Amino acid sequence: MKKTYESYKEHLLKIAHLNSTLALLSWDQEIYMPPKGAQVRARQFSTLSAMVHELSVDPEFEKLVYHLIHKSSFGFKEMRNLQETQESILQNKKLPTTFVKKGAMARSEAFQTWEQARKEEDFKVFAPALTKIVALEREKADLLGFKGHPYDALLNLYEKDLTVVKLEKVFTQIKNDIVPLVKAISEKEQVDDSFLYQVYDKEDQFEFSLGLLREMKYDFNSGRQDISTHPFTINFNANDVRVTTRVNKNDIAEVIWSTIHEGGHGLYEQGLPSNNYGLPSGEYVSLGIHESQSRVWENNIGRAKHWWNYLYPKLQSVFPNQLGEVALDTFYRAVNKVQPSLIRTSADELTYHIHVLIRYEIEKSLMEGEVEIVDLEELWNSKYQEYLGVTPSKPSEGVLQDIHWSHGSLGYFPTYSLGSLYAAQFYAQAEKDILGLPLQLESGNVDAFLKLMRKNIHQHGKLYTAEQLCEKFTGEPLNIAHFVKYAKEKYRGIYGV
Amino acid sequence: MKKTYESYKEHLLKIAHLNSTLALLSWDQEIYMPPKGAQVRARQFSTLSAMVHELSVDPEFEKLVYHLIHKSSFGFKEMRNLQETQESILQNKKLPTTFVKKGAMARSEAFQTWEQARKEEDFKVFAPALTKIVALEREKADLLGFKGHPYDALLNLYEKDLTVVKLEKVFTQIKNDIVPLVKAISEKEQVDDSFLYQVYDKEDQFEFSLGLLREMKYDFNSGRQDISTHPFTINFNANDVRVTTRVNKNDIAEVIWSTIHEGGHGLYEQGLPSNNYGLPSGEYVSLGIHESQSRVWENNIGRAKHWWNYLYPKLQSVFPNQLGEVALDTFYRAVNKVQPSLIRTSADELTYHIHVLIRYEIEKSLMEGEVEIVDLEELWNSKYQEYLGVTPSKPSEGVLQDIHWSHGSLGYFPTYSLGSLYAAQFYAQAEKDILGLPLQLESGNVDAFLKLMRKNIHQHGKLYTAEQLCEKFTGEPLNIAHFVKYAKEKYRGIYGV
Repeated sequence: MKKTYESYKEHLLKIAHLNSTLALLSWDQEIYMPPKGAQVRARQFSTLSAMVHELSVDPEFEKLVYHLIHKSSFGFKEMRNLQETQESILQNKKLPTTFVKKGAMARSEAFQTWEQARKEEDFKVFAPALTKIVALEREKADLLGFKGHPYDALLNLYEKDLTVVKLEKVFTQIKNDIVPLVKAISEKEQVDDSFLYQVYDKEDQFEFSLGLLREMKYDFNSGRQDISTHPFTINFNANDVRVTTRVNKNDIAEVIWSTIHEGGHGLYEQGLPSNNYGLPSGEYVSLGIHESQSRVWENNIGRAKHWWNYLYPKLQSVFPNQLGEVALDTFYRAVNKVQPSLIRTSADELTYHIHVLIRYEIEKSLMEGEVEIVDLEELWNSKYQEYLGVTPSKPSEGVLQDIHWSHGSLGYFPTYSLGSLYAAQFYAQAEKDILGLPLQLESGNVDAFLKLMRKNIHQHGKLYTAEQLCEKFTGEPLNIAHFVKYAKEKYRGIYGV
Repeated sequence: MKKTYESYKEHLLKIAHLNSTLALLSWDQEIYMPPKGAQVRARQFSTLSAMVHELSVDPEFEKLVYHLIHKSSFGFKEMRNLQETQESILQNKKLPTTFVKKGAMARSEAFQTWEQARKEEDFKVFAPALTKIVALEREKADLLGFKGHPYDALLNLYEKDLTVVKLEKVFTQIKNDIVPLVKAISEKEQVDDSFLYQVYDKEDQFEFSLGLLREMKYDFNSGRQDISTHPFTINFNANDVRVTTRVNKNDIAEVIWSTIHEGGHGLYEQGLPSNNYGLPSGEYVSLGIHESQSRVWENNIGRAKHWWNYLYPKLQSVFPNQLGEVALDTFYRAVNKVQPSLIRTSADELTYHIHVLIRYEIEKSLMEGEVEIVDLEELWNSKYQEYLGVTPSKPSEGVLQDIHWSHGSLGYFPTYSLGSLYAAQFYAQAEKDILGLPLQLESGNVDAFLKLMRKNIHQHGKLYTAEQLCEKFTGEPLNIAHFVKYAKEKYRGIYGV
């Protein structure tokens, strides 16, 4: 290996080509692979993943990175890339191969028993595997190391520099401001959203969703949309970013906000600098920021009356029988209905944070060893009763609803909340930076908004941390006050609270 | 590397996982990849291909194979696998890396100039690149080595043990029997096939083609059908074999025989022993045999009246306006129309061999250095005039019509003819082995036929050579007399020749 920045880049490109190939294997598996293809597909994954791992911790490569950092002088960008790479090598090395293999086996078992437990509606079926998962996650925290709380080590895997100390502030405000707001709304007269659940032709729905992506300036020369059971975004590189959506014959809202949400993720990936593909400077910065880009489209733009002023006549013209007689204001109130419910993924934008709060508290306790797996179902149900006033009637609507724990992804949930808190802050900033943004949206013009995101978020890749990006763009660190203000104003308008 | 047959298998599996991943990259590129994805896709290909090459010629692996062959005693199957692998290692090693790279560059240039030349309808644009390709193919023949004719070395890449001596016999009989048969047909009254070229709804066409695959017992749990510009079959493993078809609004024949043809290829791949995946015993034996499996379905079964007796009412019920008044016999004659034409891929089953004959003669001359590239267009046109009585009005209908030379695939074309010659011989054998085969087909029952192919061809993978397989199954080597008999009988019935 020549001791140059070029060979560093070449090595990373090789890894990137393998990773983007792994991404295609996943994409295909979710959408087009025939059922019996699964067995060999799993082996393709493990073969390529092992190759990626080998390349990532290659001692020669590590030496090269060390050499370049210490022996050469580079500009800011090159230096940031090298440092990021070095950090990730060090992190990869902290987890011994035996531990990684043990983890893979535990996850495979956990996923199977989780599916089984859901089918049988019996948390006890999943409990033993989850016990192993939690023990391994605690061990992982020890291996990775942490200064404050062991949960910090896991949080850091998804959102660099995130700590329990920081999250405590966030979720305290959720408890102080959002929980009461939701309670106040519960006491008001509920909006009528029944017309959303009529029969809507599936092909027309999909066509309309493609139109939505075009309205968002999602680039179909660098992407496509397909249908899958669980909507997702996957990127091979900035020039090939694919989103999926879900179409439900009896629910027009599902396809619309799935598409807008994934479209927001897709726009972020398409906006990453393609000439930095493979380098940290060409990668998304964190899950929280990624989620901010989907949420700002889904909620701040996608559930506001401004944009629907433009979009709604188009939707009505596709479904004249279902929506022709429904006024824009009625539609707007319906798609912003707030109501405590059991399932996180279908929650409204307010109660969503309470779903995450509950998971955050539980995961933190698990990492502290303060709660036994055997008591988890009861704990879950009591928290849902306490915070949301609802109680699951079966585990699949409660403690077994999320796939994350079976994947060993403790520490992931909080990034969902961070995403919509960042989104509110970024949108507030956009309102300052773009003269007449609401008017632009009312005429369907999203160009200035997208340009602002491109400039302040997308183009930087991983050159700054999430916190640095937020400060550079908005002049302050993450501040939940923006979300609280947005929420209070919006729902005062709808519910008079 | 442990010196066991298990480590040999493991190494081959790793290669197979990479190769099946490369296959997915191709499949996606042809069907779903957005346009701008092409650039990184090319790099993914080269990264993974380089890894495959490295693993394939790994000196440790070569030693292991040598050791196992010479130091251990294995059964027939293990021994055949080891020998096949050793042969392919030796062959890979004969081509130095510099030569391989030079070839890749020449092909890339040739493909681009071929496309350009087609657009400009000017063979001279392609000629310089083709000159390089031919020079490299001659060099390749020298590097690979040959006993008789230099063309043999190339033929062997696609069909083991194939030689000019063997092909001369085949094409002499084509000249002696098929060329005059086509001439005789040309003098008869032509059949009417105009009703095939009405407007046929594309979705209905695709639905019908899926039904055809089901009738053929193509397994949709281990495969799928999509639409692409050029129909193809691609396999990731026997449990994930994908076919594509082409739908032309104004031509019902195109989708039907594209689907049946690729379906035949697909059935072969699905019939390979999946527990031998990655080993020679789990791979198709040769291109000629592969083509026999597509052609036997496409022509011997798929253009015979027996099966259409069963299928035609189904087709009529999908397209009552277009075909309701067209009798089965009229349909049968139309889809078996023989007429000299310019384009190989749309030729009927008789003139098809003449298209291949012409390419065979030209490629052989090129390898002998008997013809200059500059004279190729004229040579092409004169041969078309001589054998088929037609002359291209532009190069894209003549010497520039095929992609093969731009890919550096000299020696490939003859396998197409071998395919349908084998097909005729296998079908003749099936008529002997299966009591009442025509009656079974008349009631849509293809089980016994598929079972016979599974037993005599599919399940053996590469354990025998094509020639051995043919002898084991039919009791004699490839014998073109079967095809000639089939052709004469069939077209006597249609044209009275």
